[in-house]
Amino acid sequence: MIITSVNNEYIKELNKLKIKKYRDQKHLFLVEGKHLVQEAYKTNKLKQLIIKQGIEYDIDLKDIIVVSDDVIRKLSTTVSTIDMIGVCEIVDNDALFGDKIIMLDKVQDPGNVGTIIRTALAFGFKDIFLSYDSADIHNQKVIRSSQGAIFSTNIRYFNTKEVIKMLKEHGYIVYGTALKDSKALSNFKSVKKLALVFGNEGQGISKEILDTTTANIFIEIAEFESLNVAIAASICMYHFASKD
Amino acid sequence: MIITSVNNEYIKELNKLKIKKYRDQKHLFLVEGKHLVQEAYKTNKLKQLIIKQGIEYDIDLKDIIVVSDDVIRKLSTTVSTIDMIGVCEIVDNDALFGDKIIMLDKVQDPGNVGTIIRTALAFGFKDIFLSYDSADIHNQKVIRSSQGAIFSTNIRYFNTKEVIKMLKEHGYIVYGTALKDSKALSNFKSVKKLALVFGNEGQGISKEILDTTTANIFIEIAEFESLNVAIAASICMYHFASKD
Repeated sequence: MIITSVNNEYIKELNKLKIKKYRDQKHLFLVEGKHLVQEAYKTNKLKQLIIKQGIEYDIDLKDIIVVSDDVIRKLSTTVSTIDMIGVCEIVDNDALFGDKIIMLDKVQDPGNVGTIIRTALAFGFKDIFLSYDSADIHNQKVIRSSQGAIFSTNIRYFNTKEVIKMLKEHGYIVYGTALKDSKALSNFKSVKKLALVFGNEGQGISKEILDTTTANIFIEIAEFESLNVAIAASICMYHFASKD
Repeated sequence: MIITSVNNEYIKELNKLKIKKYRDQKHLFLVEGKHLVQEAYKTNKLKQLIIKQGIEYDIDLKDIIVVSDDVIRKLSTTVSTIDMIGVCEIVDNDALFGDKIIMLDKVQDPGNVGTIIRTALAFGFKDIFLSYDSADIHNQKVIRSSQGAIFSTNIRYFNTKEVIKMLKEHGYIVYGTALKDSKALSNFKSVKKLALVFGNEGQGISKEILDTTTANIFIEIAEFESLNVAIAASICMYHFASKD
């Protein structure tokens, strides 16, 4: 059977997953395009595949629904042509994946959050804590800029101050980033248990949080006022990542 | 006099500047919002200010046009509220601004190009060469992500191979970026006259160009397939920038 109507009840249900409220209710989210579907599949997060009629695929899944071009278009959020959409499960992990942690406090641009997640995975920072007022990681723009790294990292929403307190109690060094009352990045050496905190695009990290870190870092720049938060985060991650 | 009609002939002319063809013809481009207008003004690129009726400003310019909210909305390309739009001149510089150069070969995403320009200025890479098939720097998305850095850098379109040849003849060290046949970034030391080349989001730099560089670099990553080009460029710029 092929679903051809955009008014099909199940398609309308899936389409609601574009809204955070419904994703949270159903514990499901959508990913668009072959690359992201494959990343979801490889990490066992793919529950159902929605595929455009006539498209070949090599995904071994029980739950596959063939749909018309109109239906795929309705479900997708980009202007580019999408051949498949994955319905994925939102998974909560309790344990940490590793010793290197990224914390995002009020980082609101989905592109920044996605790019930071992608880069975090690249540099082995596999645990990411976001404050509740950061962008939602199941937003399509976050998923797209993460290039699928959301499937291989351990991402959780938390209260930033509480996480910092908890991590310090567990022996982590916690570095914030700030333009004032901070030390240049090149002075810092890598440590085994490390958490890096990055803040809002406009305001940075609040003083209240900066006061609770082990130390705060600035990146030595020549003359412009600031760096984009994803750029700053990536430079810090590169600096602290293992070069072995 | 206040222009209130979106059908005003001059407003229609300005609106055409959203299209590259007209920008190239008129040698003019638009910037949106107070921050970018001020950056243009500080660097003497602001030719005319289009300001919404009732908005205060402290820009000392002869050519100021007051318009209605409708007119500002017509000219702007964002969903956010814009109070002013600047009409700026496209300036061509012949001489280099400095000894540190960024070259972008087929970098097509406007956000990436803008972010690289912003970061380049931050790290003192004031000369930027783009291949003709890279994004247009007077595109609103490039200007926005550059945060106005396009006004303080020297940006030119060129044939990448010709520029590399020319720079090497003038004593520049030229490093490309590649995943294969390349050396880890941490092995490289800074040099006085340096040009870094970054390539297309999907394909990277073509082999033909990689063969002409002094050497090629990869960034040591833990496990993900690649970094976003703006991230890779920023990490390299940080590595080679002066830390004094």
